[in-house]
Amino acid sequence: MSMSPLLKSLEQAFRCLPGVGPRTALRMSLHLLERDRQRGIHLAETMKQALENIEHCEQCRNLTESQPCWICQDEGRDDELLAIVASPTDILAIEQSGLFQGRYYCLTGLLSPLDGVGPEEIGLPGLVRRIHASPPKECLIALASTVEGEATTYQIITALNGLTRLTRLAQGVPVGGELDHLDASTLSQALSSRTEIVN
Amino acid sequence: MSMSPLLKSLEQAFRCLPGVGPRTALRMSLHLLERDRQRGIHLAETMKQALENIEHCEQCRNLTESQPCWICQDEGRDDELLAIVASPTDILAIEQSGLFQGRYYCLTGLLSPLDGVGPEEIGLPGLVRRIHASPPKECLIALASTVEGEATTYQIITALNGLTRLTRLAQGVPVGGELDHLDASTLSQALSSRTEIVN
Repeated sequence: MSMSPLLKSLEQAFRCLPGVGPRTALRMSLHLLERDRQRGIHLAETMKQALENIEHCEQCRNLTESQPCWICQDEGRDDELLAIVASPTDILAIEQSGLFQGRYYCLTGLLSPLDGVGPEEIGLPGLVRRIHASPPKECLIALASTVEGEATTYQIITALNGLTRLTRLAQGVPVGGELDHLDASTLSQALSSRTEIVN
Repeated sequence: MSMSPLLKSLEQAFRCLPGVGPRTALRMSLHLLERDRQRGIHLAETMKQALENIEHCEQCRNLTESQPCWICQDEGRDDELLAIVASPTDILAIEQSGLFQGRYYCLTGLLSPLDGVGPEEIGLPGLVRRIHASPPKECLIALASTVEGEATTYQIITALNGLTRLTRLAQGVPVGGELDHLDASTLSQALSSRTEIVN
């Protein structure tokens, strides 16, 4: 035995964090024990409280400790614009842009038939019921531009066609992107979707 | 507000870990909430338990939840060989080599006069009392080969001179080290301490 059993347990428990292997886990354990016990205890308590209290919002499935979440509660938002996203992380990213003032609906992932993830698993029937119940004027499909994202976008278009106006995020050259580093598909997309320069 | 207050608190609490900035803290928070609540709660509980129960061993100052620690309790160890180290991390490193079977005494750091860290602050008087009370046959000074480590080694030699046999870790070419990548001081040390090849 080269360390105390409790220190060993702490090191092993730390490995549940993403990107944390044995060495980092040990470094984190020793750092808290040797230099930062007070903040470590605060972290432990906050972690327990968050994991026990944060749930998915009943209306939009965002992460929240109050029902419904603060976005669904916010009366200043546009009920006629609904963004469909794949996870609460995407809500965060869009909120941080500060440019979206509508509501959200959060799926539980993207279609991945080979892994057995179909429309039921990502909560598509719930979305269709929500749109049928009170269709907004516009649905913005804000999913990743990956194979899974495109497949899911296509499935949503099929399911919601005719019920509401459907839009999606623009595709093209990312800000700061150099043309000679861009992949061919992005460049083709940017070319075929080129926009008018207005003087 | 782009995320729930509790999620924000969790993200901020995670930043007390070494090497964890805002982005990693958020990734860790979302990972636990979305994929690993059970192990997250286990981590929180283990962390609290470890931070509340692991203390310094009364005899050697190693990190332990039992008094004295498992090394001081181990009757199979050599009482006549005492290693002086600068932190519990160093005990771990030496234990993992599996080659040391003596006892330890853990200082609380290295001398650093410019930062106001003198002999009292690193617990040198305690070490001298311990050696005076029952001098082992050999004291191995196992400190870092840095300016602070060398200064501390020198101070210990002065304080313990004549009381016991004093040794230190060998200095030289690290295993796997290539000569042309080695700094000049290490190479000089390796040259002047060259050892006899025994056939």
